[in-house]
Amino acid sequence: MVVVMKPQASETEIENVIKRAASMGAQTQPICGESHTVIALLGDLTQVQRATFDAMSGVQKTVRIQDPYKLASRATHPERTVIDVNGIRFGGEQVVVMAGPCSVESRDQIIQTAIAVKEAGASVLRGGAFKPRTSPYSFQGLGEKGLKYLAEAREVTGLPVISEVMTVEAIDLVAEYVDILQIGARNMQNYALLQAVGKTRRPVMLKRGLSGEIQELLMCAEYILSNGNMQVMLCERGIRTYETATRNTFDLNAIPVLKRASHLPVVADPAHGTGDWELVPPMSLAAVAAGADALILEVHPDPESALSDGDQSLKPERFADLMCSLRKVAEAVDRSIATPTGSVDTAETSDKEVPNTVEKETGVALA
Amino acid sequence: MVVVMKPQASETEIENVIKRAASMGAQTQPICGESHTVIALLGDLTQVQRATFDAMSGVQKTVRIQDPYKLASRATHPERTVIDVNGIRFGGEQVVVMAGPCSVESRDQIIQTAIAVKEAGASVLRGGAFKPRTSPYSFQGLGEKGLKYLAEAREVTGLPVISEVMTVEAIDLVAEYVDILQIGARNMQNYALLQAVGKTRRPVMLKRGLSGEIQELLMCAEYILSNGNMQVMLCERGIRTYETATRNTFDLNAIPVLKRASHLPVVADPAHGTGDWELVPPMSLAAVAAGADALILEVHPDPESALSDGDQSLKPERFADLMCSLRKVAEAVDRSIATPTGSVDTAETSDKEVPNTVEKETGVALA
Amino acid sequence: MVVVMKPQASETEIENVIKRAASMGAQTQPICGESHTVIALLGDLTQVQRATFDAMSGVQKTVRIQDPYKLASRATHPERTVIDVNGIRFGGEQVVVMAGPCSVESRDQIIQTAIAVKEAGASVLRGGAFKPRTSPYSFQGLGEKGLKYLAEAREVTGLPVISEVMTVEAIDLVAEYVDILQIGARNMQNYALLQAVGKTRRPVMLKRGLSGEIQELLMCAEYILSNGNMQVMLCERGIRTYETATRNTFDLNAIPVLKRASHLPVVADPAHGTGDWELVPPMSLAAVAAGADALILEVHPDPESALSDGDQSLKPERFADLMCSLRKVAEAVDRSIATPTGSVDTAETSDKEVPNTVEKETGVALA
Amino acid sequence: MVVVMKPQASETEIENVIKRAASMGAQTQPICGESHTVIALLGDLTQVQRATFDAMSGVQKTVRIQDPYKLASRATHPERTVIDVNGIRFGGEQVVVMAGPCSVESRDQIIQTAIAVKEAGASVLRGGAFKPRTSPYSFQGLGEKGLKYLAEAREVTGLPVISEVMTVEAIDLVAEYVDILQIGARNMQNYALLQAVGKTRRPVMLKRGLSGEIQELLMCAEYILSNGNMQVMLCERGIRTYETATRNTFDLNAIPVLKRASHLPVVADPAHGTGDWELVPPMSLAAVAAGADALILEVHPDPESALSDGDQSLKPERFADLMCSLRKVAEAVDRSIATPTGSVDTAETSDKEVPNTVEKETGVALA
Repeated sequence: MVVVMKPQASETEIENVIKRAASMGAQTQPICGESHTVIALLGDLTQVQRATFDAMSGVQKTVRIQDPYKLASRATHPERTVIDVNGIRFGGEQVVVMAGPCSVESRDQIIQTAIAVKEAGASVLRGGAFKPRTSPYSFQGLGEKGLKYLAEAREVTGLPVISEVMTVEAIDLVAEYVDILQIGARNMQNYALLQAVGKTRRPVMLKRGLSGEIQELLMCAEYILSNGNMQVMLCERGIRTYETATRNTFDLNAIPVLKRASHLPVVADPAHGTGDWELVPPMSLAAVAAGADALILEVHPDPESALSDGDQSLKPERFADLMCSLRKVAEAVDRSIATPTGSVDTAETSDKEVPNTVEKETGVALA
Repeated sequence: MVVVMKPQASETEIENVIKRAASMGAQTQPICGESHTVIALLGDLTQVQRATFDAMSGVQKTVRIQDPYKLASRATHPERTVIDVNGIRFGGEQVVVMAGPCSVESRDQIIQTAIAVKEAGASVLRGGAFKPRTSPYSFQGLGEKGLKYLAEAREVTGLPVISEVMTVEAIDLVAEYVDILQIGARNMQNYALLQAVGKTRRPVMLKRGLSGEIQELLMCAEYILSNGNMQVMLCERGIRTYETATRNTFDLNAIPVLKRASHLPVVADPAHGTGDWELVPPMSLAAVAAGADALILEVHPDPESALSDGDQSLKPERFADLMCSLRKVAEAVDRSIATPTGSVDTAETSDKEVPNTVEKETGVALA
Repeated sequence: MVVVMKPQASETEIENVIKRAASMGAQTQPICGESHTVIALLGDLTQVQRATFDAMSGVQKTVRIQDPYKLASRATHPERTVIDVNGIRFGGEQVVVMAGPCSVESRDQIIQTAIAVKEAGASVLRGGAFKPRTSPYSFQGLGEKGLKYLAEAREVTGLPVISEVMTVEAIDLVAEYVDILQIGARNMQNYALLQAVGKTRRPVMLKRGLSGEIQELLMCAEYILSNGNMQVMLCERGIRTYETATRNTFDLNAIPVLKRASHLPVVADPAHGTGDWELVPPMSLAAVAAGADALILEVHPDPESALSDGDQSLKPERFADLMCSLRKVAEAVDRSIATPTGSVDTAETSDKEVPNTVEKETGVALA
Repeated sequence: MVVVMKPQASETEIENVIKRAASMGAQTQPICGESHTVIALLGDLTQVQRATFDAMSGVQKTVRIQDPYKLASRATHPERTVIDVNGIRFGGEQVVVMAGPCSVESRDQIIQTAIAVKEAGASVLRGGAFKPRTSPYSFQGLGEKGLKYLAEAREVTGLPVISEVMTVEAIDLVAEYVDILQIGARNMQNYALLQAVGKTRRPVMLKRGLSGEIQELLMCAEYILSNGNMQVMLCERGIRTYETATRNTFDLNAIPVLKRASHLPVVADPAHGTGDWELVPPMSLAAVAAGADALILEVHPDPESALSDGDQSLKPERFADLMCSLRKVAEAVDRSIATPTGSVDTAETSDKEVPNTVEKETGVALA
C-alpha cells in the first residue's frame, strides 16, 4: 500500500502515519517527492486497512498495490481451474452451453425444453425454481416442486442441472436436486449466503451484480473459496449503465479481464446481459470469441407464454441455429463446444421414448 | 400499459397482441399512428407482464404507465407516514439526527460515543454489530456482544438504537436489542430478508443499493409493506457512477423525488454517500435543505483507530459543530432538529453522572 | 508517479523502467515489496506519460500522485479567486443568482423575463442565443438577433448577461454582446474552443460534461487558464448515470469537492441537473447549503410555450418564492444572496418605467 | 407521442393538453385508464416537443413512440449502406481492418507502420495529426506535417487514410490529405463540426461519445446526413461506466443494436474501448463475431516510445497474429476480411521496394 500525504503535510503528520503503520506490523519507506511525501507500506499488510490512513490528518489518499483477493488470484494459482460436473468440464478446452427456461413452469415445459436443448447440443440444463423478482406481486417460482421437475428432466435427458439458491435455509434443499448452485446477481454480496455455499462441496456459479466491480466479484468468490469450496465459476450477466437501448450493458470485456486475473472458469449470460432475444445470438458468438468457458442461455418452447423473461428467451429452433454458429466460432478460436454426456444413440433413443411417457402422464403433446 | 408495434407489424401480429391481452383480463384500445400502431391496455393489469408482450412477434417495445408499487405510493396514500420510535418522530416536521460509530468496537467506545452524540443533540444511536464487508478477511462485527453493548448504551443515554440485520436467522436476535432494523445497501434486493422483516412489527430503514433505481427501492419497500409492516423509511446512501472523486455519488436528488413519489420518511446517509468525512458537513446541510426527514451520520471518538469506515467518520467536536449548523439550516426551511427524548435537564444530569458510572464499571476515563 | 511492476517482473524489466524514467529526466526510487516491486518517479515529471510505462513489459499499472492540473489547483493558489462582473462578485461571501429563459425567443420575452427576475432579486440574466440541440430538426436559437435582445434587456435592467458560445468563429460576436461566456456541457472537451476563450479576457463559465470527471473538468479549466484567461467559473449541471427518475443526476457532491480542489468559483445548475422544475427549488436550496458560489436557473414567463426546456423552467412567481427561501438558507450558512447592482430605489423606479418604454417600442404589453 | 396525465389531473388540465397538441397540428386520442388518462398524439409531430407537455400542469410524463431520427433509420431505409473508399467497401460482406499508430510521430514511423500493417493485411491506414488531449501540456499532434506524412504513407502503400478533424476551420485542410474524416468521441455533439462535415462529400466516421446513448449517436449522424453527406459510419469506442478494470467499458452490444436500428456501417475500436493492449485481440475477435463491419486498431512499431496511447497499441507481430485469427472468426460468421487494394503481387513488390526508397530518403533502417 502507498500512503500519499497532502502537499502541506507536517513532519508530525508524516511521523504519525509511520508510527501507525508500524503498530500494525508494517514496515515503511517514505519517499519525498517535489510536492508530496509518499509512504510505502511493506511486509505483512493483512491487518492494515486503507480507511485507517484515509482518516488520518495530513493524508491525501491511499493507493492499494496488491490485489485484495488471494485464493481467486491467478498470480498465486497460475494453472486454470477445471470443474467437472458429471463429465462436463468447465474451464478446459471445451466451451459448455447451458440452456433452458428462465423459470420452471411445469413438468412438461421443463422436460420438453430439456429434450430440445439436448438435441441442439446443450450439455447442462438450466431452470429457476426460486425466482428473485422485482415485484412482490410477480410469479416467484414453483419452489421445491420446480426442483423435482428439474431432477426429472435430468433423469430423462442425462443433462446435469443448474438452479439458483436464494437463501441459506434453502441450500440443502436445492443441493439435493441440482448439480450446480447458482448465486444470482442480486445476491452477489449476500455474504451469509456466500459463506454457506462455501461450506458445501457443490460447484457454484456466482453472478456479477448489476453494479459489481470485477474486483468485487473476485472478492465475493473469495468468500466462497475461503470457506473451502474451490469449485467456483464466475458469470458476467450485464451491468447497469446509463445506456437504455439494452436492458443492461453486457460487459464482454469482463471475460478476458477475469481470465487474466483469475484461474476460475468464466461464464457468459447474454440473455440477462442484454435482455433482448434478438441480441442473444450475436452476443453469444462474441462471448465465445472473447474467451468465455461457458454460456448460459434462455430457451423456452413458447416465449410469449413464459412466466418470466420471455423477451430474452430463444425458441428451440433459433437455439439450434445458434448452436451451429457457436460450433464454427469455437473452432475459429481453437476450442470446441462440449457435447452432452451419454452416447448420442442412447440419448436419441431415450429422447424418442420420453415424449410418449410424458404424453401419457400429462396428456400434452410434446411435438 | 402501452404496447408499441413495429412499423411493419402485420394485422395478425396486432390481433395476437389484442387477444393475448384479453386472455389476461385486460381491455385494449388500439391507436393507429402514421408509422406505428400502439395498443393501450386498460383495466386490471395485475396479471399482465411486459415481458410477455416484448417477446411477441411484431412488438417493438412496451411502456409502463402506472407505477408498479401501490402501498409505497403517495398517489394512493397522500398523507405522509410518521414513524414514532420511543417518541422520536420520523417523517414529521422535525428532522431526526441518528449518529454513532460505523461498528460497535467495544463497550466503552459505544457508550462514550452515545453520550457524546446525545450531548451534541442526536436523538438516535447507530452502531453496527453485524458488518457486511467486501473482504472475507476484514473485521465482521462483534455480533451479539455488539448488540448487548448497544442496548447498554441505550440504557445509559435513553437514545433508541438502529442497527443492521443481514440474515433472516438473525432478525429475532437483532430485534431483541434494537429499535430500528436497518437493511443494508447490499441487501436491498435480498427478498427473503425483506419479506421476513416485513413480518416483524419493528420499524425498518431500507437503504438504496449501489445500483438501485429509485423505482426499485420503492418496489423493495413494497416487499416489506405487503408483508404487513408499514413502518418503513427509505435511505439514500450513494449510488455507483463513473465519478471516482467521491467513493459513491451521493444522489441528493433522490430525496425530493422519493418525497414526491412516496409517503414514507426519507433518510440521508452522507457518510456512506460520499465516503469522505470532509464532505459530510456540507452534504448533511444540503440534505436537510433538500427535504430529508432524517440524517444518519458516523461519529467516532478516534476515527484513525476505527475498525471500519474511519475515513468517513466525524470526531465528536466536529459533529457538535455540524449540529449547530444543521439547526440553522433546518430553521431556514421551516423545520427543526429533533431533540433527544427525556427532559433536557434530566438528560443533562444523567449525562454528567453516566461517565462516572461507566468509569467505575470499565476503568476507562471518558474525558 | 508510481510504477507498479507485475509480481513476476524480471530484473531486466525493472531496469528498463528505471532507464526509461531516467531518459525522461525523472529520478527513481525502487521499493521491493513482498509480492511487487514498485518504482517511485521523482523530480520534474512534465515530460513523463503514464501510457509509456503502461505499455512496458512487466508493468502492472501506474498510479498518479500529483494532480495533473496546476493553475486550477488550490494547492498552488490557496486563496479563492473572486471574479467581478460589473460589480457582481462570484466566489466571494455572496451567492450570485443568475436567471432567465433557456432560449431567447423574442425581444419581449427576454426583456419581460429580465425585469421579472431582477425584481425577484436575480443579479445576472441568462439566455441562450445559440442552442446546442440533440435533434437537427429542433429550434437552434435566434443567433445574433438573440444576442441583440439580450443586450437590450441588459440596458433596460442593468443586469449583466451570460450566454453560450458554441464555436470558435462566434466568440467575437458573442463577446461583443455578453458579459460572461458560457461553454456548454457538450463542449467541455472542445479543446479548440477552450483555447480560444482562453485568449479572450472575458469571464468564462465552463460546464461539466455529462460524463465529465471532476478532474477532467479541472483539466479543461486548465486549457482556458493556461491560455491566459484567469476568470473561469466551474459549473455542475448533472451527470449521466443509470438513474432515470431524473433526466440527469445532479451531482451536488461536486460542489464541496471542487471548492476543496480548486480556487475557482463554483456554480450550480439545478434545472439542467435534474431536468424537472419541481425539483429545482429543493435542489437550489441544497446547492447553497453545500457551498455553491452561484446558481443558474431557468425562468420563463410561460414555460408551456417555451421553445426549449419548458419542463425545467420556473414561472416568475415560483422563482420569487424560491429567492425568499434562498436568502434564508444562505444566511443559515453565513452567506447572503447578491443583490442586483444599481441602488435598489433607482432599480425599482427604472423597473416601473421600463415596461412603458418597452411597450412603446414593441407594442406588446408586458403585464 | 403519448402524454400520461397525473392520476389526479383535472378535466381542464386534460383539455389544455388536447388544445395545445391541436395548436401544433397534432391529432389526439385520449384513453381513460383506471388511474391515469393517457393522450395519444397522432399525425405530423415534427413541431411537437416533449418538453412543452412535460411543463404543463397535470402532466406526469411523456413517452416517445417514434424514433427521433429519420435518415439514419433502417425503418425508412431497409437496405444497408455500403461506403466505397478507393475500392475498400464498408458495410458489405467484407470486414475492413483499419490500423496504424494513435499519433503520427514522424515520417519514418508512419511509413514503416503503414508497410507493416499492410503486410499483415490491413486495408486502411489510421494516424492522428490533430490530437485531442486531456491535458493542455501533452503532445497535441504534428498538425499539417502529420497529414503530409500520412499522404506519403498512402502513396507508398496504396492504403487509404483516416484521420481526425477537430475543428470546422481544419476540415478543408484535413480533407485535402485524407480519405475518411474521423469525428472523435469528445466531439460527437459538436454540432457545428457535424454540420460542416455534413457539407463535405468525404466519408465520415463518427465516434460515440463517452456518455453517448446509442440514440444520441444516431441523432448526431442525422446532423451529418441531413446536411447532405450520406457516407457516415458509426464507431463504438467504449463508454464511461463505474467499472475501472478497463479504461472504458467497450460496449459491444452497440454493434448489433446499431445494425438493427440503422443502415449505416458499424466500426469497432477495441483499443480505445478497453485502453489495454492485452484485451485488444479477444475483443477484436468478439467484435467481428458480433457483426462489426470494420475494426480500427492501434499498431505501433515501438509502443513504449509512442507519444500517445502506447498502452493500447499492438506491436506489428501481434497485429499480424491477430489478423490470422480475425480471418478465421470472420469466416465462422460467413464473412471475410477485406484485403488491401492493388493486386497482391504488385503490392508485395512495391512493399519490398519501398523500404529501400525510404531508407535512401531518410537514412533510417526500416528492418
